[in-house]
Amino acid sequence: MSFDRLQEKIDDMQNPTVVGLDPALEHIPPYIMEKHIEKHGETLWAAAVAVCEYNTLLINMLHDIVPAIKPQLAFYEALGTEGMVTFEKTCSYAKSKGMYIIGDGKRNDIGSTAEAYSSAYLGTVKVGGKEHRPFEVDALTVNAYLGSDGIRPFLEAAIKYDKAIFALVKTSNPSAGELQDLCLVKEGKQGMKGNQGKEKVGRSTGSNEPETALYVAVGDLMEEISGETAGKYGYTRVGAVVGATYPEEIGYLRSRLKKTFFLIPGYGAQGGSAEDVARAFDENGRGAIVNASRSIIAAWKKQDGDPATAARHEALRMREKLRKAIYAIE
Amino acid sequence: MSFDRLQEKIDDMQNPTVVGLDPALEHIPPYIMEKHIEKHGETLWAAAVAVCEYNTLLINMLHDIVPAIKPQLAFYEALGTEGMVTFEKTCSYAKSKGMYIIGDGKRNDIGSTAEAYSSAYLGTVKVGGKEHRPFEVDALTVNAYLGSDGIRPFLEAAIKYDKAIFALVKTSNPSAGELQDLCLVKEGKQGMKGNQGKEKVGRSTGSNEPETALYVAVGDLMEEISGETAGKYGYTRVGAVVGATYPEEIGYLRSRLKKTFFLIPGYGAQGGSAEDVARAFDENGRGAIVNASRSIIAAWKKQDGDPATAARHEALRMREKLRKAIYAIE
Repeated sequence: MSFDRLQEKIDDMQNPTVVGLDPALEHIPPYIMEKHIEKHGETLWAAAVAVCEYNTLLINMLHDIVPAIKPQLAFYEALGTEGMVTFEKTCSYAKSKGMYIIGDGKRNDIGSTAEAYSSAYLGTVKVGGKEHRPFEVDALTVNAYLGSDGIRPFLEAAIKYDKAIFALVKTSNPSAGELQDLCLVKEGKQGMKGNQGKEKVGRSTGSNEPETALYVAVGDLMEEISGETAGKYGYTRVGAVVGATYPEEIGYLRSRLKKTFFLIPGYGAQGGSAEDVARAFDENGRGAIVNASRSIIAAWKKQDGDPATAARHEALRMREKLRKAIYAIE
Repeated sequence: MSFDRLQEKIDDMQNPTVVGLDPALEHIPPYIMEKHIEKHGETLWAAAVAVCEYNTLLINMLHDIVPAIKPQLAFYEALGTEGMVTFEKTCSYAKSKGMYIIGDGKRNDIGSTAEAYSSAYLGTVKVGGKEHRPFEVDALTVNAYLGSDGIRPFLEAAIKYDKAIFALVKTSNPSAGELQDLCLVKEGKQGMKGNQGKEKVGRSTGSNEPETALYVAVGDLMEEISGETAGKYGYTRVGAVVGATYPEEIGYLRSRLKKTFFLIPGYGAQGGSAEDVARAFDENGRGAIVNASRSIIAAWKKQDGDPATAARHEALRMREKLRKAIYAIE
């Protein structure tokens, strides 16, 4: 099962790190970018090939110590169709090196369209009699604002093709709470007829307790939808994104959502510490993975020498910090 | 200004319709698909070229009576990098025919990543000294669950490049209300420290009034963020997606969000009627556009003859219905 494979890679390497391959062009080492601009001109293709080369170097240098990558689709889409070629090549190459791939696309839509996204990233598309896998990843991030019928198509594809999803619950950005922390009325009664599902999620008991917050209702809804999809470590195919920048909420959600695997962004550059993210792990040190992007892929800006080697040094440093905080290994 | 241009196209044609180019492969006329499979095999490329050809035929047959198209990115992503080439070609061709283009991607992310999405669809990307426009559209749909700092980068690009966005407020799907209709506590107090922006959005006055619903808080937040960006018809650069399947909510939101242009999905196949969507328009018959996808692009399944001509017939039928309901034109 998808998250079992991820957990076992984490256990083998004793490293619950996922490296975010978020190739903003300023993070690509200049010598690589310049080489391809010289060859292809100042084109999107030059940029896309440069990103592809740097990603390959990073994967070569990281795959024996880091179990997973998380390419952020926005940065590939920003390079046009050429960037999408690089996204696909990066995923294929990381897969060939045994890495687990989390496609960070935060996709969302209503039923039939959510099916199309599922086919694109988790499942297959049939042309005539032949099945294709357009952009294959192991797990995809999704946004749950549309409710359960916007999530189920992703979950169905995940079950059919042994994949997984991570739904946004509590994001790492400063304004995350503007909507996510809104406080819900206990009974969840609405003023308009024809609305559904309200009793299931509006289960808070007061205005000063964490369980009344919207993000908790989203987490509860996701755990409810995930049904009986748990693997051997107890985690279902519907994970949750929970930001390292909100450690109290991480702890609260870990105690509440016992079947939900957590993807934790916001470590390092955004301010989350190893002690903060340690709260995301269960009593066996399982059930979560911590993302770092800039601090690793742009480590060359703060270190001399080869950029991929700088990334490896930084990844090892992060591994040591996480090991101390989570597994109490010195 | 972007929505002024859209409104003027609508006024000129007396037709507030946007045609959703959502090319699920079953909607592509078989003779087109078979021709390209014969030429390119059962490949994603064959499917992507077939979609491109059908979109071109549709645009040729619709651009003089329909002001806008809304390609749904999921269906292009489902055809891999080849599909993204078709997305880009479809947008370029529609632009050359004078159509307004709404990219339906429901994109969302934190600040720096939201900037990358903005660059991809609304702005530019710089390689060396040269600026590129990877996938240019006039407006992009976005999801606001991450709060204002996930929306502002899109708005900033919209201001800089004369574009616009539509944020999901109340979606058209059956489970939309599971989260969107959740009822908020009046004061918006939270049980956790460090959360922000709560007073601004949690302004409901009781548990049985529409203004206590989450979707209203999202709509309010979007109108607040949109600031002083209104054009000559009074609408800002931050529009809202409001489903035709929830007519009471449309009416309520129209009276509340006076500066917000509405994109209305869910007409036709999903069940919304012309009378339902008429509530989205202001007293001058402005401020909204109604999407139809399947009922137009797959009209050939219910009519004999040429598929693009069938689409035109259906688009004219929809135009007449909307004219009667909105402008009282027989």
